[in-house]
Amino acid sequence: MNAYHPHAADHAFVLFDVLLAHEHLAELPAMAEHADTALLTQVIDEAGKFVGDVVAPLNRSGDEIGAQWKAGAVTMPPGFRDSYQAFWQAGWPSLACATEDGGQGLPTVVEAVLHEMLNAANHGWTMAPGLLHGAYECIRHHGSDALKARYLEKLATGEWLATMCLTEPHAGSDLGLVQTRAMPLADGRFALSGTKIFISGGEHDLSDNIVHLVLARLPDAPPGPKGLSLFLVPKFETDGTRSAVHCERIEEKMGIHASPTCVMRFDEAAASIVGEPGKGLNAMFVMMNAARLLVGLQGIGLLDAAWQKANAYAQERRQMRAPGSGSKAGQADVIALHPAIQRTLGTQRAWIDAGRVIAYRTALELDTQKHHPDTARREAAARWCSLVTPVLKSAWTEQAFSGASACLQVFGGHGYVREWGIEQHVRDARVAMIYEGTNEIQAIDLLVRKTLPDGASALQTLLGELAADSAPDPRTRQALQAFSAFVREQVVPQTSAGDTAPGQPFWLADDFLRALALLLMAWAWGRLAAAPNVDASAHADFWRWVWPEFDMRMAMMKTTLSVGQPRPAML
Amino acid sequence: MNAYHPHAADHAFVLFDVLLAHEHLAELPAMAEHADTALLTQVIDEAGKFVGDVVAPLNRSGDEIGAQWKAGAVTMPPGFRDSYQAFWQAGWPSLACATEDGGQGLPTVVEAVLHEMLNAANHGWTMAPGLLHGAYECIRHHGSDALKARYLEKLATGEWLATMCLTEPHAGSDLGLVQTRAMPLADGRFALSGTKIFISGGEHDLSDNIVHLVLARLPDAPPGPKGLSLFLVPKFETDGTRSAVHCERIEEKMGIHASPTCVMRFDEAAASIVGEPGKGLNAMFVMMNAARLLVGLQGIGLLDAAWQKANAYAQERRQMRAPGSGSKAGQADVIALHPAIQRTLGTQRAWIDAGRVIAYRTALELDTQKHHPDTARREAAARWCSLVTPVLKSAWTEQAFSGASACLQVFGGHGYVREWGIEQHVRDARVAMIYEGTNEIQAIDLLVRKTLPDGASALQTLLGELAADSAPDPRTRQALQAFSAFVREQVVPQTSAGDTAPGQPFWLADDFLRALALLLMAWAWGRLAAAPNVDASAHADFWRWVWPEFDMRMAMMKTTLSVGQPRPAML
Repeated sequence: MNAYHPHAADHAFVLFDVLLAHEHLAELPAMAEHADTALLTQVIDEAGKFVGDVVAPLNRSGDEIGAQWKAGAVTMPPGFRDSYQAFWQAGWPSLACATEDGGQGLPTVVEAVLHEMLNAANHGWTMAPGLLHGAYECIRHHGSDALKARYLEKLATGEWLATMCLTEPHAGSDLGLVQTRAMPLADGRFALSGTKIFISGGEHDLSDNIVHLVLARLPDAPPGPKGLSLFLVPKFETDGTRSAVHCERIEEKMGIHASPTCVMRFDEAAASIVGEPGKGLNAMFVMMNAARLLVGLQGIGLLDAAWQKANAYAQERRQMRAPGSGSKAGQADVIALHPAIQRTLGTQRAWIDAGRVIAYRTALELDTQKHHPDTARREAAARWCSLVTPVLKSAWTEQAFSGASACLQVFGGHGYVREWGIEQHVRDARVAMIYEGTNEIQAIDLLVRKTLPDGASALQTLLGELAADSAPDPRTRQALQAFSAFVREQVVPQTSAGDTAPGQPFWLADDFLRALALLLMAWAWGRLAAAPNVDASAHADFWRWVWPEFDMRMAMMKTTLSVGQPRPAML
Repeated sequence: MNAYHPHAADHAFVLFDVLLAHEHLAELPAMAEHADTALLTQVIDEAGKFVGDVVAPLNRSGDEIGAQWKAGAVTMPPGFRDSYQAFWQAGWPSLACATEDGGQGLPTVVEAVLHEMLNAANHGWTMAPGLLHGAYECIRHHGSDALKARYLEKLATGEWLATMCLTEPHAGSDLGLVQTRAMPLADGRFALSGTKIFISGGEHDLSDNIVHLVLARLPDAPPGPKGLSLFLVPKFETDGTRSAVHCERIEEKMGIHASPTCVMRFDEAAASIVGEPGKGLNAMFVMMNAARLLVGLQGIGLLDAAWQKANAYAQERRQMRAPGSGSKAGQADVIALHPAIQRTLGTQRAWIDAGRVIAYRTALELDTQKHHPDTARREAAARWCSLVTPVLKSAWTEQAFSGASACLQVFGGHGYVREWGIEQHVRDARVAMIYEGTNEIQAIDLLVRKTLPDGASALQTLLGELAADSAPDPRTRQALQAFSAFVREQVVPQTSAGDTAPGQPFWLADDFLRALALLLMAWAWGRLAAAPNVDASAHADFWRWVWPEFDMRMAMMKTTLSVGQPRPAML
């Protein structure tokens, strides 16, 4: 029904009025020429027009018709090829790629805004270019000169699309179980054999070639993750011959029907190695923060699209008198006046606006990490990206699903039928809690891999930075101090004691991530509240309806620390 | 993939070992002959077999093929007509109908167990007979002798199915806006004209006739809900002529595809009035507690079905070493050993088991309300049903959706594809938060309609009964006392003061319902824990992962009371 419409000014507001992105970018020599508010605003405006005019109108039909598989070929829904061709030819994939590779050298945050809009408009469509930038970075950092010469510009411009072939039927979260084999060939290449599943865009008709990045195991490789190497297999070789990689079928899924989720079979497919043998996971991890940031932005975009629909409906639909509205008996008010609806919409707005601040800040930090001349600033940026990215990915994809469901509820029975398009958002959003590392994996990443090993030193520094930046709001500062003390006095000592049950950090992880998400939101709302003309009601909604979860998470963590291993590690 | 399988013994355990249903029923003269544990257990066993053998296998195909509309006729998915015919001919719809109407006179709680199993097995299938008992009660209590003679036995046995035609495009939660007109005819009947939407089972091929109960407005009726009368329109008249009621189309929905959600057009359809003019809503409200109990049971059943699938998968799927499992490096443990999975499964189990205790107790109270010889006991039972039913409907349908989503997460990417059938539960479960009164309406019903008007007197009595029945657990008693004091000292005085903003109870309602849901769960877990051989780990999971929400809800309510009207009732 009413499609999502990008509001470029709202994005620019967060970028410039709240985050002062131009000041951050001016510190980066590589970006200084782009630290121009007018230029960046114009790019965002144009992005909004393209997304709104070209991509958003294909969302509904993309869901209903979906990608179609026949005899190994995949036909995308009507309009998808043409719109994708227009997309790359207009230069949108190359925004943040290096100019020497045919890119435009713009800051990562502009690409972040574009992807948020794209996902809000059409999640299925956006899956196709979603992995492009990651593949580009992977080849750029790890590819041989020959691979770069052949693929880098094609990937930078998006003329060719890319996949990541990681998962196998028995190897999902645990990539150490990957069985696909790579046998050396006489010409220095490798013959790849195995089956990969859940390959987004493994086959389609959007682009003239598809570049597969594949995790596989050399003959002499040790078992486990250290035995994995990364390979490149193009759909078509330079001479036009088709590689021995086949799309066996596509999955029937809950949502994102426009994105073909492929089972890919490699039958001794000729492959080039990317990076060093046994360093396959390293080569993929280089792009992980960026990829997870994009998934977090999916969450924000999907939630914003659902909010837009529900908000518009609530302004039109009339049911019953709202308390205190002054309407006469028998009159029906618009449901936007009813408390339950106001709470629902205000809560989602509080998540969307704070999420944007956190995500755009993270995108700015990605560029700072790459380009800042000062080592300490680069390290601080790396710390932010490392700790904040899993929080953003997990908490905002969770909210995209539960919040889209809350927006569906605004429609009552009309939300459950397809007519208004709100139920599609709920179905689409669900996948983002799973891919690019499940939300449970994100929580383990944050606490077990990134916080506890250095005794929470990096985290404490981040908390201090947030506190220093939250001076005007005593609630935020107090909460940051309380959390910091809790981590220092309880979490670290109790999980590092030799006699602690080994599972305890894993039992803590989910609540720990949620607590940090709420602290980041409190910081973000402090930044928003300091900006001119901010929506004060969404700020109040944050403290009233979202923040109280913080104490609950703290209580749950204290219980976990007090009970030790909650049950024996047995069935 | 693996279909839901009813475990009759688990249901009988709650009924007899936890709730001592036989002792309750022995006090009711009309039910005393059925207060026989062996007999009731046998009925539940047989119900489990029918549901597991006949209804469960049709769940997946029912979703994928769905109900099909063509030229006004609806064809149900393959196997649906035969299985429904077998269902009513075996006497399942008539379990709890009066023997004088062709029923079996069994207690309501047996029907409750049957419906929980049916919904777990096949939500779409169960929609068809879901309204049957309500329609039967409606005709039994409000129909003329002529209507009873013609329809009562057909509805009791389920030979004919029934609908409730309430909603119109502009009248959903607000039935006062209904516009369908009823013009008197010379023969004492009425000509009904109007369009009704969201009519579950408005047209199908399951039964030889369909009985529509329709809310409409007489020519001289006042506006609003008091102007509504109830009418009966059969699909086929006694002489076999087809009534002027047409199924214009069926909705495309997120789930329950096997249940045709119909747009029904009445073109001067000949109708009989049911009950008195202007008392249409009263005639429907007589069955509301029973209908809402059934929807709460849908939630419990769907959550149990999702839990069964996720639990089975978690025992098979191996990914990574679980902390403390003692497995060697490179070995992968079953994911049931991983903390995040244990927490997810334990949390859902805590909801399912407590929900069953509360729902079956409510079903017993429905019979006590009808049949107990002692007035005070009947009043106490009516109080329980009135206050607990909206809590059950709201909290357990919410949990069915969010908990089924949590169970989907156990499957990782495999949960998002159709193969394992878990995503269907998520899509199906979503509707139960909306129909039979949205969950927000349930919260308003509990606080604004049923608690505040008598100064919370009925609620305080209920809380006292729960406390008296929770002697062994000090946490439960303390929480009940704290909540009781909060209601007495803050909620009632602050919402009844003349100068209070009129919207405040509406802002409180959702948190109030959640708090009561958690108190009821604490009581239920006390009952479960006192029974022999109960699962102690799910009990611990309740206190650890579910209960902490109570303090959060209390904090949110205190904030609401402290801020008064949180924002002006304007846009």
